[in-house]
Amino acid sequence: MKKRIAVDMDGVLADVYSQFAAYHERDAGIRPDPRTLDGLAEFEAFPNGRLHVNTRGFFRTVPLVTGSQQVLEQLNKRHTIFIVSAAMEFPNSLDDKYEWLREHFPFVGWRQIVFCGTKDVVDADIMIDDHLKNLDTFKGETLLFSQPHNRHAVTRHRRVDSWAEIAEILL
Amino acid sequence: MKKRIAVDMDGVLADVYSQFAAYHERDAGIRPDPRTLDGLAEFEAFPNGRLHVNTRGFFRTVPLVTGSQQVLEQLNKRHTIFIVSAAMEFPNSLDDKYEWLREHFPFVGWRQIVFCGTKDVVDADIMIDDHLKNLDTFKGETLLFSQPHNRHAVTRHRRVDSWAEIAEILL
Repeated sequence: MKKRIAVDMDGVLADVYSQFAAYHERDAGIRPDPRTLDGLAEFEAFPNGRLHVNTRGFFRTVPLVTGSQQVLEQLNKRHTIFIVSAAMEFPNSLDDKYEWLREHFPFVGWRQIVFCGTKDVVDADIMIDDHLKNLDTFKGETLLFSQPHNRHAVTRHRRVDSWAEIAEILL
Repeated sequence: MKKRIAVDMDGVLADVYSQFAAYHERDAGIRPDPRTLDGLAEFEAFPNGRLHVNTRGFFRTVPLVTGSQQVLEQLNKRHTIFIVSAAMEFPNSLDDKYEWLREHFPFVGWRQIVFCGTKDVVDADIMIDDHLKNLDTFKGETLLFSQPHNRHAVTRHRRVDSWAEIAEILL
C-alpha cells in the first residue's frame, strides 16, 4: 500500500557530521576523532556548530548520506514522500536547503518539501529521523536513523543504520 | 479548549491583492478596478502575477490584511497557532516571508512557522485559508477567508469576510 513518508534532511539525507567536522577543522586546524562523538548532542560535539548552521553556505555544500539518493528515488516511485526539515530555527538555511534538494534530489518536486519549526505539525504514516524529539511526538510508524548523537539511546523506535536497511524495510 | 489552528499567509495575513495591484500599476501605469477582479483566479486578474511572486521583495513589503495582527495576537494566547504558507512553488519568497513574519508578527515563534508545497501534510484542528484547494483536503474545521478570487464560490466551508469575524468565532 502506498504510504506517506516524512523524511528528515539533516542526519538522514545530509551528512551534517562530515560538514561539522570540515568546518571544525577549518576553524581549529584539527579534525575531531569520530570515536569521541558518540552520545554527545551535536552542539556538544561541535561547540561552534550553532554558529556554523547559521552561516549561509553550510547546508548548500553538505555531503550526502551514502545511498540516500538511490533509495529515495525508488521510494518516491512507490510511496508519497515528503522531505521535512525543521529549518525555521536557522532561517539562513532556507535557500541553501532548497537549492541543495533541487541539486541532489531533482526527482523530489516542490510540492513534497516542508520546512517547519516543529515536526508535530506533520501528518504522515511513517517518519524517518535521527532526532528522538521528532519521532517521540509522531503518531505513525517511526524509523530512527543512527547518528553519533543517538548512538546510546534506548527507545521504542526501530533503529536503522543505513539507507540499505531502509530499502529492505520499505521497498 | 485549546485548538491547533493553521493560518494561511497570502490572502489572509498578507494583502497580496494590494501588492499585485501596486506592481501592476508600476508596470502598466494604471491601477486595476477592484470591481473587475471578482471570480478571477489571481493570475488571471494579474497576468504578470506569476512573475511578480517570483521576484525577491514582493512578499517582503506586502501590506497587512486589516485586523490580522491584533486578532492573531489574541488567538496566539488562547490557541496553538501555526502559520502555514504554500511557499515552495516560489522559492525566492522564502527569506522574504520569514522576515515579513518576524517584522509584523513578532509574537509568532519560529516553531510556529511552516513553509510547504501542499497543505495536505498539515495536521491541525482548524484551517483558515482563502484557497479552496487547501481547505478541501483538510480533515478539520475550515474557514474560507473571502478574497476576490473566491467571491462567487459556493462551498461547504464557513466563509469569513474579516479578521473581526474570525475573532467572533474563535475568541
